[in-house]
Amino acid sequence: MYQFTTGRRIEFADTDLSGLVHFSKYFVFMETAEHEMLRSLGVTIHTRYEGFEIGWPRRAVSCEYVSPLRFGDQLEITVQVERKGRTTMTYGFTFEVEGRVAARGRITAICCVLDDPTGLRAIPLPPFIADQLEPAPLEAGDG
Amino acid sequence: MYQFTTGRRIEFADTDLSGLVHFSKYFVFMETAEHEMLRSLGVTIHTRYEGFEIGWPRRAVSCEYVSPLRFGDQLEITVQVERKGRTTMTYGFTFEVEGRVAARGRITAICCVLDDPTGLRAIPLPPFIADQLEPAPLEAGDG
Amino acid sequence: MYQFTTGRRIEFADTDLSGLVHFSKYFVFMETAEHEMLRSLGVTIHTRYEGFEIGWPRRAVSCEYVSPLRFGDQLEITVQVERKGRTTMTYGFTFEVEGRVAARGRITAICCVLDDPTGLRAIPLPPFIADQLEPAPLEAGDG
Amino acid sequence: MYQFTTGRRIEFADTDLSGLVHFSKYFVFMETAEHEMLRSLGVTIHTRYEGFEIGWPRRAVSCEYVSPLRFGDQLEITVQVERKGRTTMTYGFTFEVEGRVAARGRITAICCVLDDPTGLRAIPLPPFIADQLEPAPLEAGDG
Repeated sequence: MYQFTTGRRIEFADTDLSGLVHFSKYFVFMETAEHEMLRSLGVTIHTRYEGFEIGWPRRAVSCEYVSPLRFGDQLEITVQVERKGRTTMTYGFTFEVEGRVAARGRITAICCVLDDPTGLRAIPLPPFIADQLEPAPLEAGDG
Repeated sequence: MYQFTTGRRIEFADTDLSGLVHFSKYFVFMETAEHEMLRSLGVTIHTRYEGFEIGWPRRAVSCEYVSPLRFGDQLEITVQVERKGRTTMTYGFTFEVEGRVAARGRITAICCVLDDPTGLRAIPLPPFIADQLEPAPLEAGDG
Repeated sequence: MYQFTTGRRIEFADTDLSGLVHFSKYFVFMETAEHEMLRSLGVTIHTRYEGFEIGWPRRAVSCEYVSPLRFGDQLEITVQVERKGRTTMTYGFTFEVEGRVAARGRITAICCVLDDPTGLRAIPLPPFIADQLEPAPLEAGDG
Repeated sequence: MYQFTTGRRIEFADTDLSGLVHFSKYFVFMETAEHEMLRSLGVTIHTRYEGFEIGWPRRAVSCEYVSPLRFGDQLEITVQVERKGRTTMTYGFTFEVEGRVAARGRITAICCVLDDPTGLRAIPLPPFIADQLEPAPLEAGDG
């Protein structure tokens, strides 16, 4: 799989006093879409693997805000696998409301052992995830 | 100790589109004041004790909202120990802005082992906390 | 209508380091269920009415936590109208996961004009809401 | 002013089940540091100006996570003005704990009229902000 789409409705607690959705919430929306994509493949994001607790701390994230989101908006979020590294996954996200793009984001996550006494330790992507995700094919004109 | 006071300023992300602080945030403010009280006594809220990971899941909480809080308000929060049970602590909270009461809340927390394979398990209050906290004396007229 | 049920799945950002859902999030879940109930009746919670911006600040809220919620849990939330006052609505909430009760909560909201220059001002419930909601009938044994 | 430093302590509700601070919270921390910088200059971020309600929706944000943050960490956040555009401000942020860098972030905000009936409308930076902030001087080697 390289692409997945899910929906969610903007909740009251997602907004701030400007009347718009708070910009930090977009990252929660992205993460939940990422998790839904993995859940659709039968993958649990936070699990035990080879005797360790593994998780996906973020290395870098970004978001561009194109048009504002408001309370009650019905959002469509598309997740795309942009890159599969040795220890990292990079996902791209597009937010749309009624066909217009509201935002675009990106998350690079590192597969890590969380409970190593020496601290977080990056590990090669476990096959049970790596084998199920493929980077999106280049669109015409990308190369 | 039976009472502790701390301050905090309302942040932009604490508000919602009504222009007021979202009502769920008051519980975050209460919890952080509780933790600051314990930290002032040298107590870590989430720790290892007798070989287990212990924490303080909430059994019951409540809040009454008296006057609204807004972005930038400088809040004064008073924590009071209301009751010390066998496995529980009950804290009362008062929120004030410039001398007027904004809200009153209460949290009852249970001391639990978090990593018992059979699930959460309540335990008697560890002495390192119980010995440092005493219920507030009754005010004249309480009894 | 006096009762409404909706679902939601626990997200990663709903949890805290204890591994459980943070207790403040239950209030966000309650509010969103309340709004979904009203949306199902065609009612917008935050709207203009008789020339003013009206909203529903909370007067009092509470929650009892029965069994913990964890990442990925599929939650069923039932909203019940407990009381319809002159200027207030009181809703009761039950959270269930796979048939077991996880929590019970309550919210009393006041219908207010938000943009009166003198501050928040409670007003009688607008008919477009009051006419559509009725308190739940007493269960046998309640009286 | 082109640089400002502030502190904050990581709260329990900032964490998630991995035991680390949730990555979306860093953006709340950045925004609050931005607002504290402006408050230190006597500037209110959300105000009325020339008859309109103005605010600072975000155009683009990003964060790189260098080392994890945990409950109780005492954070030092430095805000730097990176660029002053015609309608935008770009701020850079550095997060440090006990002298080690934990994260670096960036926010570009657009000065907008929020209550124009036609929607958000970018406006030139008001002098009461633009006159008080200057981009940080280039460090040796930057050019």
